[in-house]
Amino acid sequence: MPYQYLFFIPLRTTVYMCPPALIPYKPKNPKTRLSKILSQEEREQFAEAMLSDVKDAVKDAMCNPVLVCSELFDSEDVQVTIIDADLNGTLNEILPQSIAETLIIMADLPLANSEAIRRVTSTKMDMAIVPGRGGGTNVIFVKEPKRFHVDYYGASFQKHMKIAQEAGLSCEVVDSFRLHTDIDEEEDLVELLIHGSGKSRAYLESLGFTLAVEKGRVGVIRNR
Amino acid sequence: MPYQYLFFIPLRTTVYMCPPALIPYKPKNPKTRLSKILSQEEREQFAEAMLSDVKDAVKDAMCNPVLVCSELFDSEDVQVTIIDADLNGTLNEILPQSIAETLIIMADLPLANSEAIRRVTSTKMDMAIVPGRGGGTNVIFVKEPKRFHVDYYGASFQKHMKIAQEAGLSCEVVDSFRLHTDIDEEEDLVELLIHGSGKSRAYLESLGFTLAVEKGRVGVIRNR
Repeated sequence: MPYQYLFFIPLRTTVYMCPPALIPYKPKNPKTRLSKILSQEEREQFAEAMLSDVKDAVKDAMCNPVLVCSELFDSEDVQVTIIDADLNGTLNEILPQSIAETLIIMADLPLANSEAIRRVTSTKMDMAIVPGRGGGTNVIFVKEPKRFHVDYYGASFQKHMKIAQEAGLSCEVVDSFRLHTDIDEEEDLVELLIHGSGKSRAYLESLGFTLAVEKGRVGVIRNR
Repeated sequence: MPYQYLFFIPLRTTVYMCPPALIPYKPKNPKTRLSKILSQEEREQFAEAMLSDVKDAVKDAMCNPVLVCSELFDSEDVQVTIIDADLNGTLNEILPQSIAETLIIMADLPLANSEAIRRVTSTKMDMAIVPGRGGGTNVIFVKEPKRFHVDYYGASFQKHMKIAQEAGLSCEVVDSFRLHTDIDEEEDLVELLIHGSGKSRAYLESLGFTLAVEKGRVGVIRNR
């Protein structure tokens, strides 16, 4: 029945392609700004728990995690190793080779959920960005990766908006506190203990962290 | 022509009712956590500029601002004065008398825009909440105000979620960094200088504040 085969091929081509989600990740001695309250081993385990939460959210949003690691990391994930410790250079080698739409999402966003990521990947514009706290960039989604390049560190949100503009790419800024809240400092742990539900929150709690309700904003204390 | 009059009355009743937006506001000596970098007079002008930005966003989202003030404040807005300096008590006297859906939004959210507020007021649940930074509550929208009461200060987000649950009210947590970012501390000014576009950003710039790009998160400096 050749007629059926004729239908079969076009149907396959309409299957939704899961975009790769590039996740920069530093397995050794990460999150040094938390050194006052977490040992190096604890920071490494905490970073891995956050990565796990981000991967879960990414997969729920139908994206394929690809770790972009500062060194070889023992996991089953697809991995790319960062060349000469240069994240920007490595990503800017990957992007021109990417033929499909691509997500870049940081590994320290344990409040990420699939709803927020889908708001990013369903943008009607050429690309979408979620700013991080303090001027950074937490998520980038770009439909034609070869037209964009990254410039992380410092006030990268403003740099990325400018790069998009200069490339003639329309860009949506997605308004999500879940993707805006990167965990770098002690006060950020408050947000994770209040709004988190994954492995990284459970890990913090296993270390004895709880909320400390004082005047003004809530803090954290470690009980053991 | 009595026929026309018959139509006239039903049409009036279908007109969209703009919900009141209660905005707690402290005109005198506000934002004391900014005392290191702003004088009292500057803090009062800055608070008023932020209030103005919030009112603009609220009006753009088709809500009617009603100031809930710690003392009489010279403006043309509808005002309620807080009884015995007790914000919770005052709001909890207003809510049972409110027959229509009601928004409560803080005055220190200068990144608020109409899109974010509409995401709140268009909730399909009984109510919606936007958490603030550090455990607070920045926005509450409730369709039947008499079934809810507020309990601000401390870890109010968790308290409000519990009050909603105990009242049998379904509650959406709206994921917005624009409404999540309340301006209390120096580091918060970074977000306003990056993402703000209204009077409060212009006021900060008129005082000489600019971004200071260092390692890690971006800070602010005051040049005069």
